[in-house]
Amino acid sequence: MVAHQDYIIATYLIHGKNDFHKKANSIAVGLTVGTWTELPETKKKQMAAHLGKVIEVAELEPTADGEPRALCKIGYPVRNLTPDLPALLTTVFGKLSMDGKIRCMDIEAPDSFLAQLPGPKFGVEGIRQQLGVAGRPLLMSIFKQCIGMNLAELEEAYRHQVDGGVDLVKDDEIFFRDDYAPAVERVRLFNRINREKEGRTGQKTLYAVNLTGPVTQLVDKAKRLVEQGADCLLVNALPYGLDILHRLAGDPDIRVPLMAHPAFSGAIYASPEYGLSSPLLLGKLMRWAGADMVLYPSPYGSVAMPQADALKVAEYLREPSPVHRRSFPGPSAGIHPGLVPALVRDFGTDLLVNAGGGIHGHPQGSTAGGKAFVDAIRAAVEGRSLQEAAQDSPELKLALEKWGSLE
Amino acid sequence: MVAHQDYIIATYLIHGKNDFHKKANSIAVGLTVGTWTELPETKKKQMAAHLGKVIEVAELEPTADGEPRALCKIGYPVRNLTPDLPALLTTVFGKLSMDGKIRCMDIEAPDSFLAQLPGPKFGVEGIRQQLGVAGRPLLMSIFKQCIGMNLAELEEAYRHQVDGGVDLVKDDEIFFRDDYAPAVERVRLFNRINREKEGRTGQKTLYAVNLTGPVTQLVDKAKRLVEQGADCLLVNALPYGLDILHRLAGDPDIRVPLMAHPAFSGAIYASPEYGLSSPLLLGKLMRWAGADMVLYPSPYGSVAMPQADALKVAEYLREPSPVHRRSFPGPSAGIHPGLVPALVRDFGTDLLVNAGGGIHGHPQGSTAGGKAFVDAIRAAVEGRSLQEAAQDSPELKLALEKWGSLE
Repeated sequence: MVAHQDYIIATYLIHGKNDFHKKANSIAVGLTVGTWTELPETKKKQMAAHLGKVIEVAELEPTADGEPRALCKIGYPVRNLTPDLPALLTTVFGKLSMDGKIRCMDIEAPDSFLAQLPGPKFGVEGIRQQLGVAGRPLLMSIFKQCIGMNLAELEEAYRHQVDGGVDLVKDDEIFFRDDYAPAVERVRLFNRINREKEGRTGQKTLYAVNLTGPVTQLVDKAKRLVEQGADCLLVNALPYGLDILHRLAGDPDIRVPLMAHPAFSGAIYASPEYGLSSPLLLGKLMRWAGADMVLYPSPYGSVAMPQADALKVAEYLREPSPVHRRSFPGPSAGIHPGLVPALVRDFGTDLLVNAGGGIHGHPQGSTAGGKAFVDAIRAAVEGRSLQEAAQDSPELKLALEKWGSLE
Repeated sequence: MVAHQDYIIATYLIHGKNDFHKKANSIAVGLTVGTWTELPETKKKQMAAHLGKVIEVAELEPTADGEPRALCKIGYPVRNLTPDLPALLTTVFGKLSMDGKIRCMDIEAPDSFLAQLPGPKFGVEGIRQQLGVAGRPLLMSIFKQCIGMNLAELEEAYRHQVDGGVDLVKDDEIFFRDDYAPAVERVRLFNRINREKEGRTGQKTLYAVNLTGPVTQLVDKAKRLVEQGADCLLVNALPYGLDILHRLAGDPDIRVPLMAHPAFSGAIYASPEYGLSSPLLLGKLMRWAGADMVLYPSPYGSVAMPQADALKVAEYLREPSPVHRRSFPGPSAGIHPGLVPALVRDFGTDLLVNAGGGIHGHPQGSTAGGKAFVDAIRAAVEGRSLQEAAQDSPELKLALEKWGSLE
């Protein structure tokens, strides 16, 4: 009987082997103690606690092409790893990632291990508290252009977005060379605009500034930005490596939520036969590493994820956990006001409604675009149809005329 | 006319679009300035230097299933990026990685950009100089077991390997929890053994210690290990993120070669339709980031890479460059002495012959296993057959009887 609390259990989808039990056994031994059957008995005693275990081998129906396939669950002793994402990825999908048609579908880890990973510092409840927003999805707007824009131009674009009533505004994730409008200046300026807006309307706004630089300096840079008024950090967690998310989330001086961008994630999750599943990568690993909010492709837009996967990402981000706070899913790309009822129906209200073109492309501009979303969100939460809500909202009416709706 | 020196050019293999020119154009605009046609003329002038360019769209024969496909080359203005791998990956394959069946096959960057990335600190020539080895491949041995072993056991295993005449010995890449034999103690001990061996035989040996810990502390840890006598660092470059390789290579106090392990790389390169090509990931990006040696699957073993890809990885690691030193390729997995002539024939002599089971599985043990490789390498370089060499080498003779040869 395997004591599950001592093992990290990875589930693999494997195609094309002749003997899946043999393969599973070679993984369990090869990726832990390296060799087993030829060890002397005394050595086996010493090594037993470090030996991997085959938990389950479930052969599936072959593919349409007749290729055999199976789901194999392998347990890796927790004591083989340090509690961090590089150790986890190297152990369960390091060498194995190169070993034929194999995909890591899921990882289950005991709470004793997970408790050593930071998880979200604020999570759904903490961010709602910061914003003073309950019972409805949050609304986020993305800058339409960042690269090449100077501070005055970004300020104007920022004001237009904030005036539309969004809860958050985020940088473009490709905004690295920001010489014309350095991050620290954007943070100072937009923080002032946020406070003005709050004074005027009572509504709080968070600006997610793109955190860039040498990975060795990101924690220090984050601290400097927070000192200057940053209230949210956008992190390209996969290009920089998931461990930096862990270190940012684990630092007590970085007292702002972390928003993980999925840049490069498709290189890892998009194939059905290789890599990691999107729920594992964007749901579990991002949350374990400390993302308070995770952006990823919605099931609706042009850059789309299959609905079951997109829902599973959200499930992993928000399912109850005794050790980690819940994260906000932000199913993105191609989101317009007409999709809000579908988003709320499919994902509930603990959700980031994240729009770029769906705000800036509004016939009356970005402020009206934000307003159309605000009104759509209110209607969806109140259970009113968008058509009905549009009778009192010319902005929503125009948006629906332009983009239609999924109702 | 595009001034190529101002652009980073990415080549994508795209499947299943209807209009590849339209798609290419949407990439060039969408991943740089975000929007173009609707911009006013004055704004276009300001943004022109930041706008991406479609360099080429080459439609290929459809797949066997009739799926259309094309190779598209897109140029990204160098001025949009900071000179680092996270900026490069986020720019050329951030959002785009999630945008359907798309694979990034190659990236070409101008020397002015590459010169800002460190490249290998020692490279082929520097490592040859350190070891005093010319005209033949280097031989590396991998510990058979690391996890769960104490220092005395690892010492014994280390001595057996060094006595066989290998040039390098490396840790297992999954060696994270090393409580029984901490890295700093291994480094001190194995450094002493290396110096004893050098005094006795004149042969130098490098020990590649697995560099682990929080990514934010890896540079400091590397420095401490170097101070204690480390002469080579093994880095799980993809689980930690390529930028840490850059920062290690770029630090003047880390005066030892960096060996990049390909752990997790299969999650990115293995699908033919998604992710990055292996030559790009393991050849170009690893070298640009500063790997002096890169391990990856050989075309021969059980964990194999297609021959054309494996050769291309080596080509990218070793092709002349005005800005970067050349890196050693280490085509690995399932290497035994009988494969050495094929390795030298296919890859030449600027090569790391890297063996685990092919050394430890020798009928007479690890020392004889190393000796068999040494003799096989000498024969291959001198153009003698292994059968001929085996007449003077009982160790090689036994190895050939066990594993056969590819001659």
